[in-house]
Amino acid sequence: MSKTNSSTASLNIDETRLNRGKQILAHIDKKSSQKVIEALADVAPDFATYLFEFPYGDIYSRPALDLRGREMVSIAVLAATGSATTLLKGHIEAGLNVGLSQEEIVEILMQLAVLAGFPAAINALFAAKDVFTQRSTSPQHVRS
Amino acid sequence: MSKTNSSTASLNIDETRLNRGKQILAHIDKKSSQKVIEALADVAPDFATYLFEFPYGDIYSRPALDLRGREMVSIAVLAATGSATTLLKGHIEAGLNVGLSQEEIVEILMQLAVLAGFPAAINALFAAKDVFTQRSTSPQHVRS
Amino acid sequence: MSKTNSSTASLNIDETRLNRGKQILAHIDKKSSQKVIEALADVAPDFATYLFEFPYGDIYSRPALDLRGREMVSIAVLAATGSATTLLKGHIEAGLNVGLSQEEIVEILMQLAVLAGFPAAINALFAAKDVFTQRSTSPQHVRS
Amino acid sequence: MSKTNSSTASLNIDETRLNRGKQILAHIDKKSSQKVIEALADVAPDFATYLFEFPYGDIYSRPALDLRGREMVSIAVLAATGSATTLLKGHIEAGLNVGLSQEEIVEILMQLAVLAGFPAAINALFAAKDVFTQRSTSPQHVRS
Amino acid sequence: MSKTNSSTASLNIDETRLNRGKQILAHIDKKSSQKVIEALADVAPDFATYLFEFPYGDIYSRPALDLRGREMVSIAVLAATGSATTLLKGHIEAGLNVGLSQEEIVEILMQLAVLAGFPAAINALFAAKDVFTQRSTSPQHVRS
Amino acid sequence: MSKTNSSTASLNIDETRLNRGKQILAHIDKKSSQKVIEALADVAPDFATYLFEFPYGDIYSRPALDLRGREMVSIAVLAATGSATTLLKGHIEAGLNVGLSQEEIVEILMQLAVLAGFPAAINALFAAKDVFTQRSTSPQHVRS
Repeated sequence: MSKTNSSTASLNIDETRLNRGKQILAHIDKKSSQKVIEALADVAPDFATYLFEFPYGDIYSRPALDLRGREMVSIAVLAATGSATTLLKGHIEAGLNVGLSQEEIVEILMQLAVLAGFPAAINALFAAKDVFTQRSTSPQHVRS
Repeated sequence: MSKTNSSTASLNIDETRLNRGKQILAHIDKKSSQKVIEALADVAPDFATYLFEFPYGDIYSRPALDLRGREMVSIAVLAATGSATTLLKGHIEAGLNVGLSQEEIVEILMQLAVLAGFPAAINALFAAKDVFTQRSTSPQHVRS
Repeated sequence: MSKTNSSTASLNIDETRLNRGKQILAHIDKKSSQKVIEALADVAPDFATYLFEFPYGDIYSRPALDLRGREMVSIAVLAATGSATTLLKGHIEAGLNVGLSQEEIVEILMQLAVLAGFPAAINALFAAKDVFTQRSTSPQHVRS
Repeated sequence: MSKTNSSTASLNIDETRLNRGKQILAHIDKKSSQKVIEALADVAPDFATYLFEFPYGDIYSRPALDLRGREMVSIAVLAATGSATTLLKGHIEAGLNVGLSQEEIVEILMQLAVLAGFPAAINALFAAKDVFTQRSTSPQHVRS
Repeated sequence: MSKTNSSTASLNIDETRLNRGKQILAHIDKKSSQKVIEALADVAPDFATYLFEFPYGDIYSRPALDLRGREMVSIAVLAATGSATTLLKGHIEAGLNVGLSQEEIVEILMQLAVLAGFPAAINALFAAKDVFTQRSTSPQHVRS
Repeated sequence: MSKTNSSTASLNIDETRLNRGKQILAHIDKKSSQKVIEALADVAPDFATYLFEFPYGDIYSRPALDLRGREMVSIAVLAATGSATTLLKGHIEAGLNVGLSQEEIVEILMQLAVLAGFPAAINALFAAKDVFTQRSTSPQHVRS
């Protein structure tokens, strides 16, 4: 595969936003985000840059909502739309990393039964179960 | 119009859940919820009962997430799906009533640009603007 | 406005499908469908033809599901997606015309609370209420 | 994984609704529903209770629409939203159990091409194909 | 209404992206975009900045797809999701401004019947009809 | 599995539309479309006929938008709705076959971050990556 949009020369890289985004993403979920960035690298390298810059460098870094609140919102919306299970799992992981408890995440997903229907809630609870199970059996998630 | 499902006799009314739901809904947003219930009364009276019982009597009354967190989730999901503007406005109103600031609600809606796209975010911000404007010019929202 | 795709010469009109579709649509809901067709006439006249031919001439005319069943499906899906209120009302009207009772339509819409969430159900119940009210006060819906 | 919301003490269990829901679900599709309930048990045990109570104990048990009609609605809506293939298959299975024929289910899914587009219809027809194939080769689906 | 997120001091304004976005948006549709920006100004002023910067300053300004192609994509996606009629009309307007003909826009919307169903296509065609009618009767759209 | 709707006798087959659709689909993507048709054959054989006739025989064959433009629209809409990854990959394949470059497809998908959110864009870019990788390692895609 040829690199399709590697011309970062045409991209106005704002080191401040880019670095701020990288730091926030590393803080939230270093491992998952690294995988997404690497997977994007050869198909849409500029998009990896935008992903650092706008969602994390611009939005997530705004002080008026903390990272715990932001992950509540991301988990709820991804669970409601229901078509991006891998990214939902990434945000459940991220939510746990920034201080949400398993119980709080389950509450958010149960509330989806009201807002988006039982099928969306059931799907999302199964995704959460996978993440919780994997973390409980995976030593690298133990935080000192 | 004939009352289409008024046979509440066939409905197993659980006073505890029903009353708990009514109290929570009255606490969150007495005026809007009253309007919804009344509007449902002649087309689907049993549905008004279910609305008290399940979303409010069962889910919203669970202690593991507070009402502030629950309204963050409801606002985010309704704004992301984008097709129920009246109900989104009701939950923005409710969010303000349970302690979210205008600034926090705007932050949630701006984050939707990342999660569900700019059109969904713009639509929701216009809905929020309507609610904020109406409250600022409407004396009954002033809380002592 | 210029007629943008009026070149029906390039369209292979199949009189059988076209006529079959027109007859079914006239049977289901003459007045509403006539309005849709007329409204499409000057912006996309070929599309009005396709609308007769494929949904009604091909699909609705298949015998394996009766019109009552087909309108149950159309009402449920339009209510679940939630963004086409005018067309939902047209199909509620059509459902009543082909033999669904108000009570059955309300049951379908209440079940949406389970499948697609309470907001979608509430919106659809309000649409049904409008249709029921209008029919009860409108003499031309009285069927002999 | 710790049990995240096991405090059923705080839950007002209504034996009537719960039992009614369990009986209906067992009637519709004992095997699939048992799997869903068991899978929810350690991540969200209260949610399994709500799933019995509200969708099945409250809604599905209402007499104004029979189980055949209810499964038509559930199949149509899950196929239209398109993101919960496993649950769609469960409802296709359930539809066959409560008396829908393979031909009727295929008709419902073909109508989705009109209502939600060909991609949604194609996806759902492939899900139906999987269910039909599995049942034809699996002895336990033979009903005496 | 208090200005909720007016602290642009905390915002890293990149004049290049901001100006590039403003120029592109002015080129595409000066009047509509001006209205959106002004309407956002008192509820979410930073969001107006992001709207210039990311969608227009970053994405729309990339040379690998021309503005005609970009508006084809925006019109198709907004019409398919169906919940943002005002913004769909803005992009139909924009599409005409960057060189799409009425006939091409109608073709895109008719193709939605295949991809997202007839209801989505019908709704979008009615939106297009409104825009075409308004332009044909409105002198300021005549371009010299 | 019994053939559920094989009664093509009841189907008014229009050889012109059918043949036109078959030719267009063969031109766009012979291999993928053949697989879809074959997979539909034993569950819904009439649906395979409709798929040739309406989307390809009627819509895609209209001259006002070329196949390149049609695939831009199909890719964008399937990526935005996000629930039909297999069909999205088929249309990315088809887009390459009718003259879109990898770079143009990536641009369309990146624009989805604006229109439908970053999660939809990321999912679609991963689907594109799979298609590009497979074609680069698969000799039958080399066109003389």
